[in-house]
Amino acid sequence: MRRAWVIASGTELTLGQSVDTNSAWLAARLAALGIRTERIVVVPDDAAALRDALLQAAGATDAILLTGGLGPTDDDLTRQVLADVVGVPLELDPLSIEHLRAFFAARGRDMPERNTVQALVPRTARAIPNACGTAPGVRIAVRGTPCFALPGVPFEMRAMFDRDVAPELRAAAGGAVLLSRRLQTFGLGESDVGGRIADLMQRGRDPEVGTTADLGVIGVRINATAMSADEATRRLDDTEAEIRRRLGDAIFGRDDDTLAAVVGRLLTAAAATLSTAESCTGGLLGALITEVAGSSNYYRGGVVSYANEAKIRLLGVSAADVEQHGAVSEAVARAMADGAGRLFDTPYALAVTGIAGPAGGTPEKPVGLVLISLCSPAGSIARECRFGSDPPRQVIRMRAAHTALNLLRLALLRETQPVQPP
Amino acid sequence: MRRAWVIASGTELTLGQSVDTNSAWLAARLAALGIRTERIVVVPDDAAALRDALLQAAGATDAILLTGGLGPTDDDLTRQVLADVVGVPLELDPLSIEHLRAFFAARGRDMPERNTVQALVPRTARAIPNACGTAPGVRIAVRGTPCFALPGVPFEMRAMFDRDVAPELRAAAGGAVLLSRRLQTFGLGESDVGGRIADLMQRGRDPEVGTTADLGVIGVRINATAMSADEATRRLDDTEAEIRRRLGDAIFGRDDDTLAAVVGRLLTAAAATLSTAESCTGGLLGALITEVAGSSNYYRGGVVSYANEAKIRLLGVSAADVEQHGAVSEAVARAMADGAGRLFDTPYALAVTGIAGPAGGTPEKPVGLVLISLCSPAGSIARECRFGSDPPRQVIRMRAAHTALNLLRLALLRETQPVQPP
Repeated sequence: MRRAWVIASGTELTLGQSVDTNSAWLAARLAALGIRTERIVVVPDDAAALRDALLQAAGATDAILLTGGLGPTDDDLTRQVLADVVGVPLELDPLSIEHLRAFFAARGRDMPERNTVQALVPRTARAIPNACGTAPGVRIAVRGTPCFALPGVPFEMRAMFDRDVAPELRAAAGGAVLLSRRLQTFGLGESDVGGRIADLMQRGRDPEVGTTADLGVIGVRINATAMSADEATRRLDDTEAEIRRRLGDAIFGRDDDTLAAVVGRLLTAAAATLSTAESCTGGLLGALITEVAGSSNYYRGGVVSYANEAKIRLLGVSAADVEQHGAVSEAVARAMADGAGRLFDTPYALAVTGIAGPAGGTPEKPVGLVLISLCSPAGSIARECRFGSDPPRQVIRMRAAHTALNLLRLALLRETQPVQPP
Repeated sequence: MRRAWVIASGTELTLGQSVDTNSAWLAARLAALGIRTERIVVVPDDAAALRDALLQAAGATDAILLTGGLGPTDDDLTRQVLADVVGVPLELDPLSIEHLRAFFAARGRDMPERNTVQALVPRTARAIPNACGTAPGVRIAVRGTPCFALPGVPFEMRAMFDRDVAPELRAAAGGAVLLSRRLQTFGLGESDVGGRIADLMQRGRDPEVGTTADLGVIGVRINATAMSADEATRRLDDTEAEIRRRLGDAIFGRDDDTLAAVVGRLLTAAAATLSTAESCTGGLLGALITEVAGSSNYYRGGVVSYANEAKIRLLGVSAADVEQHGAVSEAVARAMADGAGRLFDTPYALAVTGIAGPAGGTPEKPVGLVLISLCSPAGSIARECRFGSDPPRQVIRMRAAHTALNLLRLALLRETQPVQPP
């Protein structure tokens, strides 16, 4: 068994009122078992649509994972559709009805009559126990393809998959594994990254290499398939080493690393402290830094100097500089960083001032113009960024905060003792 | 036009490394145009899978919305697959290449040769301009079914849909409409909200009413179907009025309103200004406030007093209070708000101090304990919140920031001139 389809049912999903997170969770679990999800199909609570998707999947793949539609109400159709597709009647499962009664008894309630339907399973199926809720799952063969129907409530679905479905799939997968890793880069565009590793990204290669882009962070994903986890890991390591040779210190971390977490590790290793002065980001830079648990060990605090008076009075920016160069200027950015470092008595200080829009731009200083400055023991540096006037305010702010953190990261790599690469 | 399929492409989606949020966004927008999404199909970056999904959709529905695969790297296959499916060659689109050059020029960079492929569109297609990024979209008929291919980067995709795709779909949709509205509440639990409107939430009713929960914000969603937008709107209005009678000022806004935006409107109406002092939220409260465009009209700034020295030296919190009561105490929260109001010379000032975890808790002051204080012309108030020690750090911080904004909202409703309800 190498391939699977995931089917999620729910009108709230196809109306866009909820985001389907179950399918991604299942796909990740399947990948860890060496099973590749070839397609995710989301259908409304509609018998014909669910039947179509099931029949299409049964002819095309090795296993079907289905979530949703097992509740006690009228829009829960999965049990009936499975029975119809297979051509068998629904029958009451004695263990499931016993579990349902016990579930309600444990909560001091009588079982509502309505819940009885949840104990019905197609004659040729096996009920999958649900320790956390009322709806048992259904294990059935649809035209020879194993199909596992699980509830849509995420924590119930997850527990049932791990306890009951994964062991069967693992045995059937025959030991192949698919392991993934993501290298996180900042400072290069997606096409720059793609250009430097184009040969590794060619179709049909294994490990497979691809890129993703999110607010200036370009991720390089590596997927390796092998007959053992050791072998897959070794191949991931080889490809990672090659990509590191090509991309150098644009790579700031791996997997779920954030720029703020990496900066935190570097500051901790250097026993150094940090403060911030923010204008257009309004606290976002501080919020990213303090998202990291333990950040109080190196982050002293910051000033959100949204008004010019605050820049002048709290950070000691000169009124003449504000007057002459404007609040969004290199001189003011440098003075803000300088002021924060003095105010909080930290060797490192970051400052951000810019025009996040949508209003406030001029031809000379358009929306998207951001000045970033870093004060460090090696001196003061500044960067002018132009993020364009079209992205939404929140995108410009996030890119500005990321750029500031990256400026600090590179300075720490240069200026402090080398530490283990992230 | 009544029905659509949404197709999302990306191996990061089918491997479960990213959650597909684009499809839900598109489905919600389509619903607002009276177009029901019949199926969402997610495929890997694989030409055969994308081709299959396109051909299946073209025979089954009225319109196809496709996201992803328009980037400049080798795993971006959408342009080529569309050309193959339709049976026409790719050609360079002069306007798109001009836009690409201008995009890079505006950022002071030469266009990498690699990006040229993004200006290729199938001969029978129209390029959909992308004002925010490099990848133009593609409007093409696939076996007679209109197909709109948009980039996978959410903010680019959203802007292009709203500007270019929605007008065409709206014109084609005619007829029945499904309108949705969401009332946003804060301060009541989901079961409290559900209990007060249980009769309106019964299955089979139209308008259909349901609840969602996100970081303490409980949304009440209303969907109404009718043959005209006027009729649907009237029915939404009636149901909204009934829900407002039941939930009162727990309702802070509608649809995409945020607590910060509503607070901003109230401050603007009262011509009042605000400052902040943050400890455990580390700038997050300021970041939420300044997410709102125009917030510089009422937000003067803040201090992120992460270290105790900053609380004492910048905000004038007494060292004795910190010593005696601890940094997470009502006395310190009140002194922080007071200090911010003085420092920034604002009538309103919010302060947050707490233990976001995972470390730092004690039996007496556990993780999740947060003190919030508001200074206003009516005096100083404080609230002690216990968000529990199980939620992740980021959840505790967001709930704390939301609770602070809601405290201010209710004070502004009490203390300032009545304004139009949000």
